[in-house]
Amino acid sequence: MPLPQLDISGQLVFDQLLHLATFSDDPNPAVTRILFTDQDLNARAYVKQLMTEAGLIVREDTIGNVYGVLEGSDPTAPAVGTGSHCDAIPLAGAFDGTLGVIGGIAALGALRDVGFRPRAPLEVVMFTSEEPTRFGLSCSGSRAMAGALEGDYLATLRDVNGSSYLEAARGAGYGAASLDAMLAGARRTRADLGAFLELHIEQGPALEAEGLQVGLVTAIAAPAALAVRFSGDGGHAGAHLMHLRNDASLAAAEFALAVERIVLATGSEDTVGTVGRWEVSPNAVNSVPREAALEVDVRDVDADRRDGVVAEVLAEAARIAEARRVRLETRVVSQDPPAASGEAPLAALAAAVEHLGLTSRRMVSRAYHDSLFMAQIAPTAMVFIPCRHGYSHRPDEYASPEDIERGVHVLALALAQLAGDAGAEHVEL
Amino acid sequence: MPLPQLDISGQLVFDQLLHLATFSDDPNPAVTRILFTDQDLNARAYVKQLMTEAGLIVREDTIGNVYGVLEGSDPTAPAVGTGSHCDAIPLAGAFDGTLGVIGGIAALGALRDVGFRPRAPLEVVMFTSEEPTRFGLSCSGSRAMAGALEGDYLATLRDVNGSSYLEAARGAGYGAASLDAMLAGARRTRADLGAFLELHIEQGPALEAEGLQVGLVTAIAAPAALAVRFSGDGGHAGAHLMHLRNDASLAAAEFALAVERIVLATGSEDTVGTVGRWEVSPNAVNSVPREAALEVDVRDVDADRRDGVVAEVLAEAARIAEARRVRLETRVVSQDPPAASGEAPLAALAAAVEHLGLTSRRMVSRAYHDSLFMAQIAPTAMVFIPCRHGYSHRPDEYASPEDIERGVHVLALALAQLAGDAGAEHVEL
Ligand SMILES: [Mn+2]
Ligand SMILES: [Mn+2]
Ligand SMILES: [Mn+2]
Ligand SMILES: [Mn+2]
Repeated sequence: MPLPQLDISGQLVFDQLLHLATFSDDPNPAVTRILFTDQDLNARAYVKQLMTEAGLIVREDTIGNVYGVLEGSDPTAPAVGTGSHCDAIPLAGAFDGTLGVIGGIAALGALRDVGFRPRAPLEVVMFTSEEPTRFGLSCSGSRAMAGALEGDYLATLRDVNGSSYLEAARGAGYGAASLDAMLAGARRTRADLGAFLELHIEQGPALEAEGLQVGLVTAIAAPAALAVRFSGDGGHAGAHLMHLRNDASLAAAEFALAVERIVLATGSEDTVGTVGRWEVSPNAVNSVPREAALEVDVRDVDADRRDGVVAEVLAEAARIAEARRVRLETRVVSQDPPAASGEAPLAALAAAVEHLGLTSRRMVSRAYHDSLFMAQIAPTAMVFIPCRHGYSHRPDEYASPEDIERGVHVLALALAQLAGDAGAEHVEL
Repeated sequence: MPLPQLDISGQLVFDQLLHLATFSDDPNPAVTRILFTDQDLNARAYVKQLMTEAGLIVREDTIGNVYGVLEGSDPTAPAVGTGSHCDAIPLAGAFDGTLGVIGGIAALGALRDVGFRPRAPLEVVMFTSEEPTRFGLSCSGSRAMAGALEGDYLATLRDVNGSSYLEAARGAGYGAASLDAMLAGARRTRADLGAFLELHIEQGPALEAEGLQVGLVTAIAAPAALAVRFSGDGGHAGAHLMHLRNDASLAAAEFALAVERIVLATGSEDTVGTVGRWEVSPNAVNSVPREAALEVDVRDVDADRRDGVVAEVLAEAARIAEARRVRLETRVVSQDPPAASGEAPLAALAAAVEHLGLTSRRMVSRAYHDSLFMAQIAPTAMVFIPCRHGYSHRPDEYASPEDIERGVHVLALALAQLAGDAGAEHVEL
């Protein structure tokens, strides 16, 4: 028997996304939702409520990943998962990550509503902190799940208040007796996860520009993050003569322009470099900057080209520091490998797209996603829907109810195929 | 009868300065003391205690200027004042400003201790907030005293918490029923202030380099402060392609380098320009900067040349904004006139220096001081002592007990001459 027609309302998911957006430290349309803050906890409560209303069994792990589970007929079958994140960088929008969580709940709920009973368990996950805002570390939930997060490294991180990750997790009602116990409690393996799908807005302009409804992601670009700190001697802005200065912010200014120049010199549209964080100290109008700490993001679909840019950027930092007589510290915060999509999940998405008669293309994701880490433990693929002007990480980030409905529908049909039917294993669309 | 030999201990003043430094939001040797914070109030309590111990009458005005008064024999005579500030920008040192307050108390105390009774009242003032840290406005206490602070302008200012100046003043136990009443309560006029002197560290390397003990300030350089804000559209650091970006921080980087270039192009050692404040938003590693707000300080002993630099800097901001397709807002926060020293106070300082047999030179102050505003209502002069390497606004700012003792001695003798003796009007050194 083919799968019955699913009842999915893009408008309902859209409305739920806008409600989720109200849990924000900045006034809407801006959304700011930082790991383990009150608003993050409010958002989690709402997500758990939606999971319960969709008939899913809710559970949470030690690092705060939230699961909504639709039980399978075969308790030994590895689960089929979907999901994304609900945290938001300062002054971001309502759709990045959240679509994959709320849309994932809607997909599982729609399957359950038509009486679909999966063979393998179906799970929707809200991952803890895909964004690096609080501890400078992206994807802590999915890294921990994949075993790609070292306790020794995590123990070195502090937020602006000097709190450790474990302290922050405990403050939010998660955590464990030790950091290692927390990481162990979040760990999944290939044995209990059979496939993973993530629904996400494109965060780029291609689908909209080409008038396409869906993007099937074949690979996720390889990101690297660097921390660069220039330190000079500071001084009084009135009395310290120009030729005696070693102004750290001017070294930072030259460096930021060098990052742009080096990236553009690759001639590749797929290479991007950003100095996103600037901290100048003492940051007083009448004081020569003593210290400038920058964080740099370099990404490429080609890992070798990306690594070449990183090397050039670090060399240029050293050259500038010498010329401006400032001290330099650099640190490679992360330099993760790119991820190729799994064949089975990509085929399931493609079959769903064909069944629904949607227009689509295959594409590469330049943005970071939890799927980058899920791909380390299970065949993984992503499905993109268009977002207006390609805008993301901005208050005016937007995806239409119609595009959302199509994305959730594709996700639900692909999940059903991957999980199989309790009676007939193979799901006929 | 000549003035008896004064008993002044540079070591005692030095020790008091280091004690004052302990009232700091950062660990010593760094000193951070922001207007109307707890540590500012602790510092004020200590200053008032020292005033009382020196036998001075303590009073405070509505904006928080603290006076220590040695009464004169002629109640109609305009007062002779000295003083400076005790606030400190983030991560500053122990001597900027504080020397003129603690040293001023020591000078008045030493005069009183030898039985000197002035004809005109002698006052030492701790001015409220010479530094612009909290509200972006320098010298609020001395501006208010000179009537050089508009209530309408002050009403527009907010600190990072959104508090107004009046609210902050009230929270510290100062203020009045209205902003205008607060300003009126701090106002002094030529009729009640006859002369003003300020003792200060040089904040430059000249005295130390030339092996001189004292500097007599003939003029204070003309400072200007600008606020410059570049705004772009932001975007995701991974997905937003380079050629589509208008990164506000890169416009800011070009601008900061342009300020340096324009200042250096004057060929004048007396011209300085600094981009001291940088605020980048949203300031996340994975987000293209949407906004960069800078504060710029330009100073010169030559007001016309300074104004020329300001005009060029503003023109360059516009050129960069256009080239990088970002929006631009600029504001001239202040553009104060330079101040020439008064003849009588300068002569009194020179006579004191000669009497004590000290080596000295006349010089210009490149740094901002409360004296810039006192000069608007009374003949004013400053005396500088050397500071190590010319360093200021840094934790390693330092003046020796010996230099401090000489500076306080010069100040005391000059104050005595300007106030006159209760019996013989003219003071013989
Ligand atoms: Mn994001
Ligand atoms: Mn995301
Ligand atoms: Mn200062
Ligand atoms: Mn000062």
